[in-house]
Amino acid sequence: MTKTLRVNSDRMLDSFNQLALIGASAGGGVNRPTFSEAHLVARKWFREEAERSGLEFRIDGAGNHSAFLASAGRVASPQFGGAYRDQTLLLGSHLDSVPDGGRFDGALGVVAALEVLRTVKENGIRLSVNLEAMDFTDEEGTLVGLLGSAAIAGHLSQKDLQSPRGGRENLVEGMKRASLSDESMMSAKRPKESLAGYLELHIEQGKRLERANIDIGIVSAIVGIGSYRLSFIGRADHAGTATMEDRLDASLGASAFTLAARELVMKDFPNCVVNVGKMNFAPGAFNIVPARVDAALEFRSPDEERFNQLDAALITLAKTEATRFGLELKIEFLGRHSPTPMADIVQRAYADACDGLGLTHMPLTSGAGHDAQSLADLCPVGMIFVPSVDGASHSPREFTKWEACVNGANVLLNAALKMAANS
Amino acid sequence: MTKTLRVNSDRMLDSFNQLALIGASAGGGVNRPTFSEAHLVARKWFREEAERSGLEFRIDGAGNHSAFLASAGRVASPQFGGAYRDQTLLLGSHLDSVPDGGRFDGALGVVAALEVLRTVKENGIRLSVNLEAMDFTDEEGTLVGLLGSAAIAGHLSQKDLQSPRGGRENLVEGMKRASLSDESMMSAKRPKESLAGYLELHIEQGKRLERANIDIGIVSAIVGIGSYRLSFIGRADHAGTATMEDRLDASLGASAFTLAARELVMKDFPNCVVNVGKMNFAPGAFNIVPARVDAALEFRSPDEERFNQLDAALITLAKTEATRFGLELKIEFLGRHSPTPMADIVQRAYADACDGLGLTHMPLTSGAGHDAQSLADLCPVGMIFVPSVDGASHSPREFTKWEACVNGANVLLNAALKMAANS
Repeated sequence: MTKTLRVNSDRMLDSFNQLALIGASAGGGVNRPTFSEAHLVARKWFREEAERSGLEFRIDGAGNHSAFLASAGRVASPQFGGAYRDQTLLLGSHLDSVPDGGRFDGALGVVAALEVLRTVKENGIRLSVNLEAMDFTDEEGTLVGLLGSAAIAGHLSQKDLQSPRGGRENLVEGMKRASLSDESMMSAKRPKESLAGYLELHIEQGKRLERANIDIGIVSAIVGIGSYRLSFIGRADHAGTATMEDRLDASLGASAFTLAARELVMKDFPNCVVNVGKMNFAPGAFNIVPARVDAALEFRSPDEERFNQLDAALITLAKTEATRFGLELKIEFLGRHSPTPMADIVQRAYADACDGLGLTHMPLTSGAGHDAQSLADLCPVGMIFVPSVDGASHSPREFTKWEACVNGANVLLNAALKMAANS
Repeated sequence: MTKTLRVNSDRMLDSFNQLALIGASAGGGVNRPTFSEAHLVARKWFREEAERSGLEFRIDGAGNHSAFLASAGRVASPQFGGAYRDQTLLLGSHLDSVPDGGRFDGALGVVAALEVLRTVKENGIRLSVNLEAMDFTDEEGTLVGLLGSAAIAGHLSQKDLQSPRGGRENLVEGMKRASLSDESMMSAKRPKESLAGYLELHIEQGKRLERANIDIGIVSAIVGIGSYRLSFIGRADHAGTATMEDRLDASLGASAFTLAARELVMKDFPNCVVNVGKMNFAPGAFNIVPARVDAALEFRSPDEERFNQLDAALITLAKTEATRFGLELKIEFLGRHSPTPMADIVQRAYADACDGLGLTHMPLTSGAGHDAQSLADLCPVGMIFVPSVDGASHSPREFTKWEACVNGANVLLNAALKMAANS
């Protein structure tokens, strides 16, 4: 029995720490919204790090950056029976962050993917598929959300680009800064047969692994995510002279909805979540009754049927609360990703890798969206999670012990070798 | 018995309509926040209108603009027994507006005050006091609130100027645009014996006169106003991976407080009002649990004792709701004006004027703050209201029938003559 291959922990830590300095925030996190100055610096760092490692650097029309290691098949090795194969096993994650986010989310997966390629290269391992370590564009959705992977999967529509979540103006400005365009975005699409699979290491961003004291979470499904802008519309009045009874106060509908949505989910939708992440008040003055409150609503479920039920229930609730306070309700649908089951073959590869490394593992759903869900139509996809201390994420408090990060990278490496051998 | 004097309705309407065009909004209102471009144009218009009317134009260190008509005493008329008297009866209101406000609030009072002076002047009426028609600086509080009248009364503190409601930066920028400074503000203070009284015509901004079908409301007291910035502070978490139970969601405290504050006032404080006019969410993203919500709170009561009880009850409520959702609460006191009773002598002058003009009248409290409350320490003050159609105010929907406006100006004129005769 051969010795189980492992990544170089020190080299990976060195890369991780360099990256954490780019866009570092005072609280210990990073602030790298897509195509911000800090994000562009992080992207440049990835390119240079790939080139320093002797890997080929690639960029596609969606701005996805990758380090590339050609397969043995590419050099026409007779061990593949002379048949030229050009399939790629994709690994990766993303270097953009939410505003004032943490330094592990996305970054760990990119650094680990790069480290897998370095380890394979320096060990002279000859694989039947290319390995590609990718930094996907705009996973977090400052602009569009899962932008780079949607472009690769061919899911990206003109509507996504014309009415993006972050505003068209910001998208245009951002694409300009990264030398991209609507047209280039569309060129990033890859043919189905070109990918042998997609593997990603990520932090859990929850407390389940920590509570269960388990090393690795093998993702069974990624939740579906829906989002709406709900506008509760009343009437502006003088806040001193209009009696309480006479007002049509938009804040009441938005407030009541926020509280009721939480109760609904906690009572009737146990594996689901809901968030009102922002409200905008108009006119927005101390002495004017709010005429309009725009509420940013997002909800998630790992199960397609429950997802649809939750969607309908939330909209009904918003209508009920608007009516209760005499308000008008405008509902703007902003986007939807269906729940995505992970491929059995990838889950098995991860489980085998864990067993070979002596690491404990458990199946988990992912409450966060990930690029894997875009790629599930193209190839077998799968993810692993490593424990988040105190479950914190999208926050400077985000933390994962380095040993756990290395465990994840070793599972990624060994699962990639298994997937390559299967291809 | 002499014929009761009346203002020139057509001339006053002409002035009113000119003014309504300055900063006019598409919805039929005006947008003239203090020292905005539109407000500066309105101020310039007032100056020119005063000068066109042959009145002396004055400006003080707080930027208060006035048209001035010297008393007969000033020209040493023997009818006052040779004693030189230089008291001024002040009339006025303000030309600034809330963001996207109405065209009557403040503007009507300024135009009517100017029209009173024109009428007195063209009728050659010799009074024992000067008449001064004033446009007060920043009544609405885009910057400080009752700024010009507080400066005249000597109430303005360095703290008001250093930590103003609208932000120090905006105040400094605004003062610069109007060629004012912290120092000049302090120079506007007037001695107590210099004022014979203060009279103001304003729209009701409520529905009481309209419902009662009464021409004129004679204000008995102006409500006290208190304001706070309440910050509900929880924790930013990933809105997909943190379970509902694990969150410290700041929006829940702010929402629950907003609903509960309304219920409290409607149940236990019948003549009072409360408003949460704005909330700011941080970080403010769809996929991040809100870590902090800043709520802009304002409340009002016409009675000092109830005002203090309401103040305490609202703060207790905010603490209760914060604790209920595991949140921290930061309370920033922003300002307070005590309830102000109007002078009996001015209320009687208004009632006599109404009776002389054949107009119906009733006593009313003012739910809105007004410059009269600043001046109540200096001299007898009093206000009248004319009916607001549908009670709308601080809104482009604000409307008062022109006939009602003219009624108000005639009462203002005749009350001013009575006050001048009393002096």
